[in-house]
Amino acid sequence: MEEMNKTFIFGHKNPDTDSICSSVVMANLRAKLGENVEAVRLGELNKETQFAFKHFNIEPPRLIDKVQPGSDVIMVDHNEFSQSAEGIENANIKMLVDHHRISDFKTKEPVFCFAEPVGSTGTILYKLYNMNNVDIDKKTASLMLSSIASDTLLFKSPTCTEEDKRIAKKLEEIAGVDINEYGLEMLKAGTDLSDVEEEDLINLDAKEFNVDGIKFVIAQINTVSIDDVLKRQEKIENAMSNKIKEDKLDLFLFTITDILNGDSEFIALGDRTDLVDKSYKLEDNRAFAKGVVSRKKQILPMVTKNID
Amino acid sequence: MEEMNKTFIFGHKNPDTDSICSSVVMANLRAKLGENVEAVRLGELNKETQFAFKHFNIEPPRLIDKVQPGSDVIMVDHNEFSQSAEGIENANIKMLVDHHRISDFKTKEPVFCFAEPVGSTGTILYKLYNMNNVDIDKKTASLMLSSIASDTLLFKSPTCTEEDKRIAKKLEEIAGVDINEYGLEMLKAGTDLSDVEEEDLINLDAKEFNVDGIKFVIAQINTVSIDDVLKRQEKIENAMSNKIKEDKLDLFLFTITDILNGDSEFIALGDRTDLVDKSYKLEDNRAFAKGVVSRKKQILPMVTKNID
Repeated sequence: MEEMNKTFIFGHKNPDTDSICSSVVMANLRAKLGENVEAVRLGELNKETQFAFKHFNIEPPRLIDKVQPGSDVIMVDHNEFSQSAEGIENANIKMLVDHHRISDFKTKEPVFCFAEPVGSTGTILYKLYNMNNVDIDKKTASLMLSSIASDTLLFKSPTCTEEDKRIAKKLEEIAGVDINEYGLEMLKAGTDLSDVEEEDLINLDAKEFNVDGIKFVIAQINTVSIDDVLKRQEKIENAMSNKIKEDKLDLFLFTITDILNGDSEFIALGDRTDLVDKSYKLEDNRAFAKGVVSRKKQILPMVTKNID
Repeated sequence: MEEMNKTFIFGHKNPDTDSICSSVVMANLRAKLGENVEAVRLGELNKETQFAFKHFNIEPPRLIDKVQPGSDVIMVDHNEFSQSAEGIENANIKMLVDHHRISDFKTKEPVFCFAEPVGSTGTILYKLYNMNNVDIDKKTASLMLSSIASDTLLFKSPTCTEEDKRIAKKLEEIAGVDINEYGLEMLKAGTDLSDVEEEDLINLDAKEFNVDGIKFVIAQINTVSIDDVLKRQEKIENAMSNKIKEDKLDLFLFTITDILNGDSEFIALGDRTDLVDKSYKLEDNRAFAKGVVSRKKQILPMVTKNID
């Protein structure tokens, strides 16, 4: 019975650090406002996120696989139902806090929605604490910093705004953490993919899209050495080919992002590799994309532009 | 060329006082932040809104009939594309500020969206001024007060929250206006419908919905005497019957709201009057609904509940 009155707070499937941290940060806020809430997650913690929670000695959220009809939920760091929990269509969405475009989202009643085009959901949650006059404690500040460091790739991503930088400075003081030092450690922890099988590697941070009937996946991994990852190109391509067949994809675009230099290497397979090739000439199924790090701001717009 | 760089700000079609006032209030804010904007409207001003703008000697926004592809727009007091400007699908939506449920809305890029379940969009705009540290001048405060008085029916509507009341108090001080006195004058001005033909009366504030394939309209007018309006019942029913035939409606629900007492009288026609009759027994196509004033919170939920 208690579970029925509890509001579940979660980010997107294939959760990244911003999704996990933001669900905990939002849960801390709602709890301080006297609400019965629990942060949960819709998938496994990646190594970067594991590092962050271990570093600050914070318990990560519990895994759930779906939401029950009529249960109360708060969505953070995503709004598209296709990226959300199974059963989201029949849940009672009470709030949304996000920094993505709005699409494939609706509510039955008027609810609180706050979205801004900033680098991380953590940045918006900082403002929400202020709006509610709730103090940000040290652990909460550490999680917000982790959100910002992760989603902006330490301020290198084109999605990063002056707001993210300004708020990160304030959070550094509260948390007593140097974001450049801690953030680099965290990002590097996320790049240790040596023990991840290629089948899992291509799904670690994969998002599926459907534009004008063209079904494609853009996956992204972070590294400190593109060359190291490219040693596994053959096995990665095999895994991609299997995925394309299984899911009837028109394109699988695997992106290897060099977080130290802020560049990416693409590996593209499928019938519609022309959607990449028009912008970046593919050779041996690969292309180097200088200055490209953001799926949302750079890679997805490139593919959709080439569809038009 | 100048027009191309200008951002148009508008509320919903069949604009009410909150939609018109909020577009001007938002335009004042963006202009103070240095942006090139213009408040516009998607339909005729009703008498209530005319009264408000005349009372405060403010120029109402210009009428437009559609938006050009790629033009920059800010949506206030609505988000559903079906209630917005012709061409909204191909416009560049830069911001949304609203107090309705989110549905049939999407953006191409991440943008600023701020929605809250409060009584009027004016209430949310007050907060937005504060968030941007922009002072609210006397005329802007007068328009915000008009929004709140209109949409909450002077705090009588169930959509009214403590926030609306608290902010109205602050606005009364800035504007130097007694909301109860001014608001009643304004609401009464909106109820003088003696010179409006029945064909127009039923469309003055009509919203169309489509739920589970059932197409229906809920129209609403405000009055200080339900009996006065009922003297025109026969002609109103003729106009409703014509509209049902023309638009192939399953139900036309005409709502006459007594703003002094906070009650309504329904007139219902069409094949699916059972959707009203299940909750309020119809006699001579009419029913009295004690305490019912809100389309959003009471009337629409009643109809959709009876569909299920």
